[in-house]
Amino acid sequence: MKIDILTLFPQMFVPLNESLLGKAQAKQLLEIAICDFRQYATNKQHHVDDTPYGGGAGMLLQPQPIYRAMDAINAQDTGKKRVILLDPAGQKFNQALAQDLAQEQHLVFICGHYEGFDERIERLATDKVSLGDFVLTGGEMAAMVMIDALARFVPGVLGNETSAYSDSFSAGLLEYPQYTRPAEYRGMKVPEILLSGNHQKIAQWRRQQALKKTWLQRPDLLAQTALTTADLNYLDTLTSED
Amino acid sequence: MKIDILTLFPQMFVPLNESLLGKAQAKQLLEIAICDFRQYATNKQHHVDDTPYGGGAGMLLQPQPIYRAMDAINAQDTGKKRVILLDPAGQKFNQALAQDLAQEQHLVFICGHYEGFDERIERLATDKVSLGDFVLTGGEMAAMVMIDALARFVPGVLGNETSAYSDSFSAGLLEYPQYTRPAEYRGMKVPEILLSGNHQKIAQWRRQQALKKTWLQRPDLLAQTALTTADLNYLDTLTSED
Repeated sequence: MKIDILTLFPQMFVPLNESLLGKAQAKQLLEIAICDFRQYATNKQHHVDDTPYGGGAGMLLQPQPIYRAMDAINAQDTGKKRVILLDPAGQKFNQALAQDLAQEQHLVFICGHYEGFDERIERLATDKVSLGDFVLTGGEMAAMVMIDALARFVPGVLGNETSAYSDSFSAGLLEYPQYTRPAEYRGMKVPEILLSGNHQKIAQWRRQQALKKTWLQRPDLLAQTALTTADLNYLDTLTSED
Repeated sequence: MKIDILTLFPQMFVPLNESLLGKAQAKQLLEIAICDFRQYATNKQHHVDDTPYGGGAGMLLQPQPIYRAMDAINAQDTGKKRVILLDPAGQKFNQALAQDLAQEQHLVFICGHYEGFDERIERLATDKVSLGDFVLTGGEMAAMVMIDALARFVPGVLGNETSAYSDSFSAGLLEYPQYTRPAEYRGMKVPEILLSGNHQKIAQWRRQQALKKTWLQRPDLLAQTALTTADLNYLDTLTSED
């Protein structure tokens, strides 16, 4: 997968070279190119922003540098691209969108910064995406988060021992509580059942703990999950406890 | 504000030194300390994870290194702290939580990585927070996003010319379309009204565009927004257009 990132802060993308994403690039499963679109400014001072028409505070990104950067990307690779504009008004990013974007051959992320961007930049985007209902200084961190989440669905990026499809949100339920050594720490003990060696009982306990946690913290997820009769019976015991 | 970050990937936090957050640290409005909790491992190999009790794939973060790192932080500063655990099952991060966290004197972020963490680590947290319904390789990028969003509410971090409270989500509506120079680019023109100089008409147009965009893309936000009679009349014209 090829990923181009248009940004004014290329030095912020260090985290993409670490951990799983760093390894994915080393294995050439991901090819990430950071483009400082200031080089495409159309003035001698290399300014990329200007004041808003109609008045108001702040500076807006002008259309020309972004359009010219996209021209350069399109000249190098004429294939189909998904162009993602980080936009607080856009579609909410989630695991389904991560999985969808992971099917593409070529993604382009446009990172705004400062107060906003000229509306015409939106026309370049195939997807306007928001990371959540909060305001960030720029799109850079949001782009990195999205790239991390979607890269996990690119074949080969996760090792064989695990799969993005078995992760908590893909399975529909929140994860059951997990414990590792020591069996007791500062007075806190690991539940006995996990030390029992009874795999059937452990599997049942884990399923029930996942159901209970989801029911308590994110009941909306239960409606989207395939539940067995045993699951439903267990959930019934929870509701009747009240 | 003091912020401690517990992580196994201290080198990922470069973006905190850039842009607004870099300036906030230079002005000593934010003091950010990154702690590699591997130094608190209790074995010679400095391993911080182990296999899960009861079986299963993957490795879990053990409790000891995180507890000992917290001991060190508490020894340095005995004051009240909010301890945020990055957890997909936690409360969804949003602008209200960013604003709430920004009131604190001292925040600690615990970043998990790999497959998960021992459940006992949760007891250290005052807040379990999720960035959204997607799976990340680690909590590092999520912590950076949260710190960016909340730092904008710390007095002095944003310049005087702007305020986190006037941003799109704080105002309750999505932002109206904005334009800057040139007035025409590749055949795309700036709306005439913005070039008119009639500030009253421009203000009205902007309010209506914000209402329209919110109504089309995020109608859920309208219910949470204070609307004038003029706003409601305009929204009526939109619904009757169908």
